[in-house]
Amino acid sequence: MRILLTNDDGIMAPGIQALAKRMVDLGEVVLVAPDTERSASGHGITILDPIRVKPVKISSISEAWAISGTPADCVKMAVQEFFKDGCDMILSGINHGPNLGTDVLYSGTVSAAIEGSILGIPSVAVSLASFAVESDYSLSADIAHSIAEQLFKKKANLPPNTLLNVNIPDVEANLIKGYRITKLGVREYSNVFDRRVDPRGNTYYWLKGELVKQDEMDPDLDTVAIKEKYISISPVHFDLTNYRIMKDIRKCGFEELSLNI
Amino acid sequence: MRILLTNDDGIMAPGIQALAKRMVDLGEVVLVAPDTERSASGHGITILDPIRVKPVKISSISEAWAISGTPADCVKMAVQEFFKDGCDMILSGINHGPNLGTDVLYSGTVSAAIEGSILGIPSVAVSLASFAVESDYSLSADIAHSIAEQLFKKKANLPPNTLLNVNIPDVEANLIKGYRITKLGVREYSNVFDRRVDPRGNTYYWLKGELVKQDEMDPDLDTVAIKEKYISISPVHFDLTNYRIMKDIRKCGFEELSLNI
Repeated sequence: MRILLTNDDGIMAPGIQALAKRMVDLGEVVLVAPDTERSASGHGITILDPIRVKPVKISSISEAWAISGTPADCVKMAVQEFFKDGCDMILSGINHGPNLGTDVLYSGTVSAAIEGSILGIPSVAVSLASFAVESDYSLSADIAHSIAEQLFKKKANLPPNTLLNVNIPDVEANLIKGYRITKLGVREYSNVFDRRVDPRGNTYYWLKGELVKQDEMDPDLDTVAIKEKYISISPVHFDLTNYRIMKDIRKCGFEELSLNI
Repeated sequence: MRILLTNDDGIMAPGIQALAKRMVDLGEVVLVAPDTERSASGHGITILDPIRVKPVKISSISEAWAISGTPADCVKMAVQEFFKDGCDMILSGINHGPNLGTDVLYSGTVSAAIEGSILGIPSVAVSLASFAVESDYSLSADIAHSIAEQLFKKKANLPPNTLLNVNIPDVEANLIKGYRITKLGVREYSNVFDRRVDPRGNTYYWLKGELVKQDEMDPDLDTVAIKEKYISISPVHFDLTNYRIMKDIRKCGFEELSLNI
């Protein structure tokens, strides 16, 4: 099995290093990740600047490449340049911090897995719901390994357009209650800009979010699962069409708008 | 009505300028857009660098701000700093080039509208399906105006979590066949990296896409509507959960995985 690992915390981040070390027994592992942290880069790709590719030595695996681009760039680049005979699986992570609910839109980690599924490759994003400066990724790497094994050795039938978004609660192994299949919740933020003045007297802003609200009523939400110490697995696809309102929107009169304008 | 205009082509792009000029009769228009082109920035936000905000003079409107960030940053910033009494509508565009099917994931223009809908504001992304260096945006601005008017003056009932992704064919007005409500198609690319060597002998890559395939069988797809010279209006939401496979995925055995790892 040929496995691509990537992330958005950058190629030297401890999360991807732990994942690389743990996954080698499943097959040939190639690491292709951003040369620096690219958190919150969403599904951005690099089309206005050239992209550089540099080999990196990582002790546990044979091949690693640092890319001057986004996580989505890394997946495109890897599949074109380093997996010419095909890629069997993409694992993105282990992200430092959760990727839950609405937040997945901003996540480079999840976007890398979305890019993988666009390219038809079974893909999994893995995040540890910890904001601690020093996090231990070994349990998360074990869990990612179990999920990948289930997905491929046991041929779980995941549709080709669907990836798994996995979040792991930041608690000891014996406190984790189990796995839960979830849907993405909604997380709302406020006070998102911190206004400051630089030494030259100019104003600048830091974008920061204070979580003010998240869906908490439905146990099937990813946000609730993590809070209740379950490993959350959400099936995510890349089709943003709101099919549920297709009928209603036809009644809004857009199709009858005049063209004599 | 207080209207926010943004885009991903940058504040000085002709598409947003045409839109600003055309929308002023609908209410108070404020333009908050990236200070430079940010095409393909997806739903990225800027959390690793400070964000600068500068006032810009635009002849047709009273207030315009250039932001050193992504389109999603612009919407967050605008709503927090420049629309403290509320924002009634967000228009993102007019984008230079189509935003159809799978490509909307990469689009800063569409992501700005998605950010608007996350913040509960009725939002519309507008793109002109033209790659010509010089494009005429006046017809597209008229169409955007009609859609915005329909959406608000006539109180079309768009659910709060849904935005409209509008694409306009690049033909004369009399050749446009009408409006069509559509779903997002799939666009597949190949040969996505162009490998070159710089004057110092180092390799670099340009990310480019050659469209090799798009869904063409279903007239309800946005890709087909544009090809058939219809204005395409797709209802888009920001929930990436694949609800259709929730039942099937429960049969994949993930919830029964051992925790003794």
